[in-house]
Amino acid sequence: MTYFPNVEKIMYEGSSSRNNLAYRYYNPNKIVLGQRMEDILKIGICCWHTICWQGNDIFGESTFKRNWFKDSSNLDYAKTDALFEFISKLGVPYFSFHDTDLISESDSFAEFVDKTKRHTDYILKKMEYTKIKLLLGTSNLFSHPRFMSGASTNPNPEIFCYAAAKVKNAMDLTHKLNGQNYVLWGGREGYTSILNTSMNREIKQLGKFVNLVVEYKHKIGFKGDILIEPKPCEPTKHQYDFDVSTVFAFLKNYGLENEVKVNIEANHATLAGHSFAHEVETAFNLNIFGSIDANRGDPQLGWDTDQFPNNLDETVFIIYSILRHGGFKNGGFNFDAKLRRQSTDLNDLFYSHIGGIDLLAKSLLIAEKIINDNFFDDIIKNKYAAWNSKFGNSIMNSELSLKDLYDHMLLNNLNPKVVSENHELIENLYNKYLWEFKNEL
Amino acid sequence: MTYFPNVEKIMYEGSSSRNNLAYRYYNPNKIVLGQRMEDILKIGICCWHTICWQGNDIFGESTFKRNWFKDSSNLDYAKTDALFEFISKLGVPYFSFHDTDLISESDSFAEFVDKTKRHTDYILKKMEYTKIKLLLGTSNLFSHPRFMSGASTNPNPEIFCYAAAKVKNAMDLTHKLNGQNYVLWGGREGYTSILNTSMNREIKQLGKFVNLVVEYKHKIGFKGDILIEPKPCEPTKHQYDFDVSTVFAFLKNYGLENEVKVNIEANHATLAGHSFAHEVETAFNLNIFGSIDANRGDPQLGWDTDQFPNNLDETVFIIYSILRHGGFKNGGFNFDAKLRRQSTDLNDLFYSHIGGIDLLAKSLLIAEKIINDNFFDDIIKNKYAAWNSKFGNSIMNSELSLKDLYDHMLLNNLNPKVVSENHELIENLYNKYLWEFKNEL
Amino acid sequence: MTYFPNVEKIMYEGSSSRNNLAYRYYNPNKIVLGQRMEDILKIGICCWHTICWQGNDIFGESTFKRNWFKDSSNLDYAKTDALFEFISKLGVPYFSFHDTDLISESDSFAEFVDKTKRHTDYILKKMEYTKIKLLLGTSNLFSHPRFMSGASTNPNPEIFCYAAAKVKNAMDLTHKLNGQNYVLWGGREGYTSILNTSMNREIKQLGKFVNLVVEYKHKIGFKGDILIEPKPCEPTKHQYDFDVSTVFAFLKNYGLENEVKVNIEANHATLAGHSFAHEVETAFNLNIFGSIDANRGDPQLGWDTDQFPNNLDETVFIIYSILRHGGFKNGGFNFDAKLRRQSTDLNDLFYSHIGGIDLLAKSLLIAEKIINDNFFDDIIKNKYAAWNSKFGNSIMNSELSLKDLYDHMLLNNLNPKVVSENHELIENLYNKYLWEFKNEL
Amino acid sequence: MTYFPNVEKIMYEGSSSRNNLAYRYYNPNKIVLGQRMEDILKIGICCWHTICWQGNDIFGESTFKRNWFKDSSNLDYAKTDALFEFISKLGVPYFSFHDTDLISESDSFAEFVDKTKRHTDYILKKMEYTKIKLLLGTSNLFSHPRFMSGASTNPNPEIFCYAAAKVKNAMDLTHKLNGQNYVLWGGREGYTSILNTSMNREIKQLGKFVNLVVEYKHKIGFKGDILIEPKPCEPTKHQYDFDVSTVFAFLKNYGLENEVKVNIEANHATLAGHSFAHEVETAFNLNIFGSIDANRGDPQLGWDTDQFPNNLDETVFIIYSILRHGGFKNGGFNFDAKLRRQSTDLNDLFYSHIGGIDLLAKSLLIAEKIINDNFFDDIIKNKYAAWNSKFGNSIMNSELSLKDLYDHMLLNNLNPKVVSENHELIENLYNKYLWEFKNEL
Repeated sequence: MTYFPNVEKIMYEGSSSRNNLAYRYYNPNKIVLGQRMEDILKIGICCWHTICWQGNDIFGESTFKRNWFKDSSNLDYAKTDALFEFISKLGVPYFSFHDTDLISESDSFAEFVDKTKRHTDYILKKMEYTKIKLLLGTSNLFSHPRFMSGASTNPNPEIFCYAAAKVKNAMDLTHKLNGQNYVLWGGREGYTSILNTSMNREIKQLGKFVNLVVEYKHKIGFKGDILIEPKPCEPTKHQYDFDVSTVFAFLKNYGLENEVKVNIEANHATLAGHSFAHEVETAFNLNIFGSIDANRGDPQLGWDTDQFPNNLDETVFIIYSILRHGGFKNGGFNFDAKLRRQSTDLNDLFYSHIGGIDLLAKSLLIAEKIINDNFFDDIIKNKYAAWNSKFGNSIMNSELSLKDLYDHMLLNNLNPKVVSENHELIENLYNKYLWEFKNEL
Repeated sequence: MTYFPNVEKIMYEGSSSRNNLAYRYYNPNKIVLGQRMEDILKIGICCWHTICWQGNDIFGESTFKRNWFKDSSNLDYAKTDALFEFISKLGVPYFSFHDTDLISESDSFAEFVDKTKRHTDYILKKMEYTKIKLLLGTSNLFSHPRFMSGASTNPNPEIFCYAAAKVKNAMDLTHKLNGQNYVLWGGREGYTSILNTSMNREIKQLGKFVNLVVEYKHKIGFKGDILIEPKPCEPTKHQYDFDVSTVFAFLKNYGLENEVKVNIEANHATLAGHSFAHEVETAFNLNIFGSIDANRGDPQLGWDTDQFPNNLDETVFIIYSILRHGGFKNGGFNFDAKLRRQSTDLNDLFYSHIGGIDLLAKSLLIAEKIINDNFFDDIIKNKYAAWNSKFGNSIMNSELSLKDLYDHMLLNNLNPKVVSENHELIENLYNKYLWEFKNEL
Repeated sequence: MTYFPNVEKIMYEGSSSRNNLAYRYYNPNKIVLGQRMEDILKIGICCWHTICWQGNDIFGESTFKRNWFKDSSNLDYAKTDALFEFISKLGVPYFSFHDTDLISESDSFAEFVDKTKRHTDYILKKMEYTKIKLLLGTSNLFSHPRFMSGASTNPNPEIFCYAAAKVKNAMDLTHKLNGQNYVLWGGREGYTSILNTSMNREIKQLGKFVNLVVEYKHKIGFKGDILIEPKPCEPTKHQYDFDVSTVFAFLKNYGLENEVKVNIEANHATLAGHSFAHEVETAFNLNIFGSIDANRGDPQLGWDTDQFPNNLDETVFIIYSILRHGGFKNGGFNFDAKLRRQSTDLNDLFYSHIGGIDLLAKSLLIAEKIINDNFFDDIIKNKYAAWNSKFGNSIMNSELSLKDLYDHMLLNNLNPKVVSENHELIENLYNKYLWEFKNEL
Repeated sequence: MTYFPNVEKIMYEGSSSRNNLAYRYYNPNKIVLGQRMEDILKIGICCWHTICWQGNDIFGESTFKRNWFKDSSNLDYAKTDALFEFISKLGVPYFSFHDTDLISESDSFAEFVDKTKRHTDYILKKMEYTKIKLLLGTSNLFSHPRFMSGASTNPNPEIFCYAAAKVKNAMDLTHKLNGQNYVLWGGREGYTSILNTSMNREIKQLGKFVNLVVEYKHKIGFKGDILIEPKPCEPTKHQYDFDVSTVFAFLKNYGLENEVKVNIEANHATLAGHSFAHEVETAFNLNIFGSIDANRGDPQLGWDTDQFPNNLDETVFIIYSILRHGGFKNGGFNFDAKLRRQSTDLNDLFYSHIGGIDLLAKSLLIAEKIINDNFFDDIIKNKYAAWNSKFGNSIMNSELSLKDLYDHMLLNNLNPKVVSENHELIENLYNKYLWEFKNEL
């Protein structure tokens, strides 16, 4: 059975193609900076927005009528088939899912565990047949009412236990499916009102929880990364994993900074008052960069709109930033983006992903040129050149105390000149890359 | 000479007073929770907004015509006199200032150091005479053009050196004046454009700088606290000390988490997307709470408006939070608030501070009642009671692994019930304290 | 059958009551400014949040388990019974609902119309029996997928027709139930992307639609007000009825400014970048004030949280503002507020409304005092006194041209002095009302 | 004397040029859509940011050391010379200024008027010599302390008079210099606190003021447009000219909607919670589009950053929107943008403007292609096609009442199908224009 009968496999046709169901930039085998494009970008498709979400919003009912929901007796299989057919036709290497995206909940946890085992066998066959790999596995700890007051941060230890059991089950399945990362998004790990919240108590529970997860990872020999996904709020008033720095503070406080990394989402970055680039650079600076949830928010809206990314300006810098720091290890570009609910055609699923994938591909090609030109490297090198002086080095090498610097100042009455940062010129030169890139076939 | 000839010392007259130049709640000697009100609140007045600022904004020239600016040959002394007269008349125990608020800059750093010595002798005499103490000392590392690209994070090590020398000088003066805290606000320690910024390089410089400061503190035997004041942005696009958690991450990364605390400003909290209460609770949770810059922002405006605090709802909780965690150590309530620039009367300086001080006093009295009633304690105790069970304890005491919890779940098929958090009832009960408090004389 | 078996009618017990199921300020028969408190506040309860909403959010399933949803064959009657029982026990005079809150949709529109007729007979009996009146009637034009691209602004005229028919039906029912107002909230009347939107076309359709509504109102002799409810966005990227001024511009452009008023919601005001007070004052200034949706947003969150109002500071001014402009005509205070989804107890519905109602009552009592003291009147009168001069009047009475004023300036070389606005003093004096109000029984 | 000795006239060198002081897209004489590029874009340079602003911000002193400020005895002439030299070298056709940008204030208004006359003679000569024309004239009614509580909305009618006299003088100079537009930006026309504000009173004063201005315009035969520039806030808490719709409401209320248009600034649009495109489309829809202040804000910052525009995505749509509505009449693209204060080189003034001008030029070339392809026209035509049906027309032509539509619905039991809006496909196709444009010489 096919769920997308009218779409063939999406092929690369070059930038002059007028086929809306073809790639104009994404060419998996093209060699960029010595690697296959596919292996650099490591693109993944998420199950939740693409297959599970039906077009509802908080004020409106579902607008999509997907065939895979028609036979409710067979839902898990139908969704799985649709997912793998969709990704096979897109021709990208990875998928990602929450346990309950593909394995429906049961009143009996034992039954849920059994279903997990059976259904992951089925997924495994799909993976073998299609060569699609698992980028991120995760457990949904936020939809069921039991998690309304938190999962690990819940005032009820039985709910902590439930969450732990569910994560163990999801880690097992991720391991079985050879997943590259296991993600913790603490959608309910926060508070609604500070009046009745013991932040101290709750964060300790979260620390305990993540420690259990890391311990278990080692026990089963899972080689992927454990990733926390920062978000400042929504659904909660405040989420403990506010942003990359807050997650790092937490990890450091619980001795986890070498064990856990972050999964950065563009729209979560902006909700936290940061640019996407800021969060990526911060993660590299703190040495906890893991993976990316690719999407975009709306600069005028205050909630997670999860739109498909389409901004070249931002994306080129993100890819440049990832590459200059050595590229993805276990992570990749996971599309955590959803259609507008008025995009009701089945083909809209393809158009949207093709647009996003071509954006990443074109951005990669531009970033390659920027790297080959040493464009940003030169800017940074020149800007901070004075720190390579003997004086600069003696400061950073701890040879000089505050008193020494004071004496130096007194002696020399320094009157350092300001040097222009030429911000606008740098923006012009960066735009030159964005505007004048030509894709040679 | 007097700068405030028409105002006598502000006295406590009780809540029925109709005198706008009297306190209705602030009664320094009143015993609250076993301490003098004055000693709990530790109120300080800042020099920069109160004495130095002249009512200009980015679109408009100064609207205040203060007498202490009239004789430009004698500015430092006039400002100092005005400051001490003002605080004496307010009758609060502390002041705070930047070096250059009271000691004008010189082209020669040696001369600036000399002036500092001479002028602090003068300040010291004022302090002795008035019994006013120094709550916070700090150095202005943001107004002079040399700091346009940062102080310690500047691309020029000579500017790092300049900043270091200036801080050493300001620490010396703070020590000499027996200041309770030395504050670092990194107004320019951030970036304008990420395109030409090495975040890694700059934060390392900041780490080095704060380490030098801490080392020097110990060297001179300064017993006060070193405080970093978080702010997310303004004047920079991004400031490295974004919020309390970000500062903690930085401190922890540079081994400074036991050496440096935070000075939390209400308006900086809200600019960072947090409530004021959130930042205070976070600081206590991370064990880096130091002091408070009391003010308020405007919920519809995106910049630092530094208005006088006037919200009972918020302030009662803040004071309760500080008290439940043991109260101020070296810190206090420093008014970092300024008049609206249309409040041009000299008396407006008094009205504004009286309003803010009475807010703190009334809030303290309400907080006392809340504490005596165990109001919040009971809420928290009941909410998390289940964690005191054997099962709860065994989780937190590391006796159970993820696998154990999974087994427990499988065995018992837990189906934990949701329990109402009664958010609105708690808000009603909290409001009862705010609404029905009666100040007994 | 009873849906709230454990709650008796909520009674006024005075401010010293410790009964959480009693009013401490709301005393319907108390005379305030010459009127019964009940008749001034005109409090209404909405069906959608109180009865229909089940505690779901965009990331989570329903957490409430209400009895009135148990028998799906009898849903409309059960919800209606629950609503009237709830309001009777609260003891407030009004209710409000969308057609589909109480009359479930049908595939056949004729059947829907029939059900409407039958069910409104039932509602009418309930109203007669309980003496509860209809404050606002409205039609849901946003939940069904057919409205995903707008109701009246839809690219399909058949959907315009559907919306028109549904509104006609809802106006008829509102008229039959003797409703005081008919509300139009254009939740989908806006755009998702400006790239494919003809704003001109769509707003013309909206203008046509509201004209048809007004015409029909007159045809059937409906004496209540037609109200547009402004909201800037959510669910759409942009909603055409952004705020009060935008609605006025629209009304004026379509000749409707004397026919349509606004229903102002606190949380919508803040989402639009305004204070609640600003929107209320603007509506009075533009002469289109109609009614209030009472709730509050969260200053740190960017979506409609619809929390119960609890801020005395804001509410006193709102009530003062309404009273100084003559009070409600057809409008009232409709609670458009919902529980936090963790407040799962049936009693939480009572606590939340009691808190909000007491807030309104206490605010009214304080506003009464403010009015009797001429507090704000005096401030305004003094501030603008100079405009009552001969010179001031000659300007406003059109006797002077720009040239005349220029000549006057040249002749007199005016050098007007600035006068302090004493902002902080006014805030102190306002706080005195908030803080020291004593409710005399 | 020259102020920019190291820069020659900026010339068009084509997109392959590597000269940072050349245009790569702006080619004034190139014919686009039948007109010279220069005549379509009508680019203007503002005096305030470019010549007058010295790099200060609210936390920092001036960082620029411009030669034209060196001789304080000759300031007005030096600034004028610098302005005209700068624009001549840029090679764009327009300038704009506030009266006090080039004519320093005097204590005597008569003297100020005299200086205005003398200095405009000088400016006129400069204009004749350089062929540079005046795009916008305006008067600064916000910097002087006298305007702290408003200009026309001031509680003191003498200040209203002062403002009127100043505007008359500035309108005369604009007329004398053959300016194309006279702008009113009401930076202080709003409120700081609603507690002491009579919005009704103040807006009436504003209405009177603008009426006087319009009357005077006709009296002197000024043929340009009177433009109001919307901004939601900053410096005030709230500015009466919040956004385009609010200005329209005001104009309509005072019978001015055919007399006054709007000057839309990108950064003001985003501060008001709108996209730049939204405000432009709204202005055309309301028939009050006048001119553009070109700049950009920062999506994470809540104040007016006035950065140079650099976003192709946004700018192409803006230019397309202006062109589809018939292009500029009296308006143009005025750069209301300022350097970052770390861009201290004199050349940064050139780089920044060149970048912005090339952005406009490239955007225009892309918009030309979009227009020639009927890209957006076709989308809109198809989307709303059903409204061209007999049924659609009968609705819009007022043939059908609400009751008729209801009857139609009942009779036909319409069940309109939802049609996909294909949002993401449209974004892809739009990006194709942005990404693959090739500039043929």
